[in-house]
Amino acid sequence: MVKSKVGYPPLAMPVCLLGANVAGKANFEAIAWFTFLESRPLMVGVTSDKLHHTNKGIRESECFSVNIPSVDLVEAVDFCGLFSGSKVDKSRVFGVFYGELGSAPMVEECPVCMECRLVRRVEFMRNEFLVGEVVAVYVEESCLTDGKKGDVGKVDPLLYEGGVPAYYWKLGGQVTRAFEAGKNYKPKQKR
Amino acid sequence: MVKSKVGYPPLAMPVCLLGANVAGKANFEAIAWFTFLESRPLMVGVTSDKLHHTNKGIRESECFSVNIPSVDLVEAVDFCGLFSGSKVDKSRVFGVFYGELGSAPMVEECPVCMECRLVRRVEFMRNEFLVGEVVAVYVEESCLTDGKKGDVGKVDPLLYEGGVPAYYWKLGGQVTRAFEAGKNYKPKQKR
Repeated sequence: MVKSKVGYPPLAMPVCLLGANVAGKANFEAIAWFTFLESRPLMVGVTSDKLHHTNKGIRESECFSVNIPSVDLVEAVDFCGLFSGSKVDKSRVFGVFYGELGSAPMVEECPVCMECRLVRRVEFMRNEFLVGEVVAVYVEESCLTDGKKGDVGKVDPLLYEGGVPAYYWKLGGQVTRAFEAGKNYKPKQKR
Repeated sequence: MVKSKVGYPPLAMPVCLLGANVAGKANFEAIAWFTFLESRPLMVGVTSDKLHHTNKGIRESECFSVNIPSVDLVEAVDFCGLFSGSKVDKSRVFGVFYGELGSAPMVEECPVCMECRLVRRVEFMRNEFLVGEVVAVYVEESCLTDGKKGDVGKVDPLLYEGGVPAYYWKLGGQVTRAFEAGKNYKPKQKR
């Protein structure tokens, strides 16, 4: 293989709507930079610009939500990525519900929502990494298998490819089971 | 929409091979928990168990790599997720190359590789979040458009759905351009 150095890697990162109340009003920012940090308890980290409207709300309310939109919400998601809550009112873009924390707004139309208590802030240069303990995971019933386990194929999530131009992608098919496919794999002994 | 509370959200997270030299030997761990933290300079964060073999190498060498495998590498990737480098020698699973840091092993067969200098460690309970400044991004030439910008469709990355059972997924098609699709979106004024 022949490789070139480029400025930015071509990746498909999962899209979420980062939710927070800002001055008492629900706001949602589209981001593609989040990951998990622990399984038990489930902990998530999200990257967002310190100066963003949403961040202000998260610091004030000490909670936030991570909402996973389906492909059919792409226009509303992109709208939430294009415009700041300091300029446009995003409280009516979606239906909003609250859980046990009472002040982490979640998106009714999103098939997966995580309600998070802010437990740590890690500052970088422009951005901060906001660490949340997930206090509840809500999944739309039509996306459950046997009424228990979620099925990401039914969620039909959006994935984001950065760069100029940037694109949204959708998920294709299942490849295979994890922790099974490699059981009988034999590494080459000589190269 | 009717939602149920579940233990773990159904998501598709990008898979990477986290590379490090451990006691002078290249080792690769399959993980699905990584994100970006800054654009300029590009910074990435990866979550991995403090006790893992790879983590030991990253702490020692103060560098690591993030390698994005294509779907056709799924068996080797799963092998790297199933078995610890403390038990099996993973130095010959892939072809290995090094960049300017000299001790962050990268995977020849992966179409996208990021070479990272460890700049921060954030400890959680079981895991640590390792923050790297990306010193170089390598992309396989056949995955470039115009020889410059990477194309994630050509990369054909693996995505991971956790839970029991867990699955690998592949990318489907492009949905639309980001920062375009929502330009003319009008939020509902009343709900």
